Amino acid sequence: MKMIQLYASLKSDLQAIEETMTREVTTDLPLLSETSLHLLKAGGKRIRPVLVLLSGKFGTYSLETLQKVAVSLELIHMATLVHDDVIDDAETRRGQLTVKSKWDNRIAMYTGDFIYAKALTVITQLENPRIHQILSGAMVQMCIGEMEQIRDFFNVNQNVRRYLLRIRRKTALLIAISCQLGALATNAPPAVCAALYRFGYNVGMAYQITDDLLDLCGTEKVIGKPPGNDLRQGNITLPVLYALEDEPIRGALLDEIAAIQNSEGAADSSAAVRLVRSSKGIAAAERLADRYFAKALQALGGLPEIPAKKNLSEITRFLAQRSY
Amino acid sequence: MKMIQLYASLKSDLQAIEETMTREVTTDLPLLSETSLHLLKAGGKRIRPVLVLLSGKFGTYSLETLQKVAVSLELIHMATLVHDDVIDDAETRRGQLTVKSKWDNRIAMYTGDFIYAKALTVITQLENPRIHQILSGAMVQMCIGEMEQIRDFFNVNQNVRRYLLRIRRKTALLIAISCQLGALATNAPPAVCAALYRFGYNVGMAYQITDDLLDLCGTEKVIGKPPGNDLRQGNITLPVLYALEDEPIRGALLDEIAAIQNSEGAADSSAAVRLVRSSKGIAAAERLADRYFAKALQALGGLPEIPAKKNLSEITRFLAQRSY
Repeated sequence: MKMIQLYASLKSDLQAIEETMTREVTTDLPLLSETSLHLLKAGGKRIRPVLVLLSGKFGTYSLETLQKVAVSLELIHMATLVHDDVIDDAETRRGQLTVKSKWDNRIAMYTGDFIYAKALTVITQLENPRIHQILSGAMVQMCIGEMEQIRDFFNVNQNVRRYLLRIRRKTALLIAISCQLGALATNAPPAVCAALYRFGYNVGMAYQITDDLLDLCGTEKVIGKPPGNDLRQGNITLPVLYALEDEPIRGALLDEIAAIQNSEGAADSSAAVRLVRSSKGIAAAERLADRYFAKALQALGGLPEIPAKKNLSEITRFLAQRSY
Repeated sequence: MKMIQLYASLKSDLQAIEETMTREVTTDLPLLSETSLHLLKAGGKRIRPVLVLLSGKFGTYSLETLQKVAVSLELIHMATLVHDDVIDDAETRRGQLTVKSKWDNRIAMYTGDFIYAKALTVITQLENPRIHQILSGAMVQMCIGEMEQIRDFFNVNQNVRRYLLRIRRKTALLIAISCQLGALATNAPPAVCAALYRFGYNVGMAYQITDDLLDLCGTEKVIGKPPGNDLRQGNITLPVLYALEDEPIRGALLDEIAAIQNSEGAADSSAAVRLVRSSKGIAAAERLADRYFAKALQALGGLPEIPAKKNLSEITRFLAQRSY
């Protein structure tokens, strides 16, 4: 099954989720509706809603229930994107102007706050307190991950473990709980919820590493912004950390990163990108991503043989294809 | 009973709340703990925790339960302050450097996000879904209120109703639910919860109007920043709206406000402040604040005669005293 077929099989449910998201962020304050709908219309793969729905197939599937989880998690994801764009001073995302660039930082901040709060009004319609505890715990970890990223900007001496801990919080956790909460909300057995959490966690780790690779190896057309964006901001990702372990590259790469840091945003990062691409860092990061993808597939092992299980492994294989 | 005596009677419970707040915002990420503790130590009247505790006396008082409500609401209040300081470009608050000024805007944004999320982990320990629904609904309204404030910057044609709707969302709602949730969490009867909500709402409206008056009539020593701060930002408050209805003042005041707007933050607002002070706007705003304070006392009318009821009316009278 191709990704497009998978989405087709979930089409009407995903459509319902899309409509609920639109309805939820529409208020009688035009400015807020505009910024929120601008974000919503910018699209995205809706990977979290897809995972919520598929995980819900392992319990007593109910669109009414799962929709609340899916809408809430996707809105939280969107809210983090608006806030990240403020931090990253990003002009575009997915080829569209960001809220902070179309409007301004203040408006982006409150749009994010509003979407967070809306996400909560949706999920609090569910009465299971475990769901709220898991979600709020993940939100705390996500904020810590974002702060760690700021702390580690331009830190060329951070180790791989630190990077992995950071992306675990920043990305993997929300994907992990998308699977876990989809199962939990439909009363799937605890072992199933736990296995789906592990699946999501490993997919999330692999996904972020792949995304970090794409920022270095992708073309501007594919990533919707010039490559080397992470480096320009000072975000030292896995391929760069591995490249710094590549002795013939290390010295020149350190110089390039120092030059970017000293230019305060003015320098371009293309020389650093070229160095990383020519290093052993790319292959090493790809290997680690593949290990996480493999662990994700492994986590599916003990789950009952229902079509959703096959869909989850299809998604994993799809995400593991590199588009550079 | 004086305010200080009231606080003394709640001392050990407020102390427990303070300790829980400190513990909750302390993480193993030093930067985040520093920014959060900086905020916490800057103090404040802790009016929301006081109202939660007193409202809890109308049900089956339990510090363990009430503490979760109080900590959560005070943290949410603090999170909005950090985000507001970014928007207001405020250098100081309560005589202390703001997070955005001691660190930077990015760090202030994530500190706010982190404290919001922490507030949720605390309150989601309570299992009553109504509590979470009420809280998340209020958070949405608060964000809308903040966006309305941005929308209405320098809008001299807004009417009083629009101002009232804005401060209702921005301020009164969180104070209203402090009372409501204190009662609800301790299983007070619905009529009591509703009366306490009305009490809190009216106190909150009066409180914000008084705060807006203070920004115009207070001394720098009392308000911890130069007077006229709201006007410098373009925040047109009730005394200014009433002053604009005062024909002999209107023309000159419009000119001054236009000058502030055109200076893009460079002009000082002291001439505008003097005009408002000399107008009928101050007395008119004071009258409306007094009406809200009176309605707050009225809302207490039907409540059982327990000491907490007297305490709530003492608080109201205390807040109604003007310190300018």
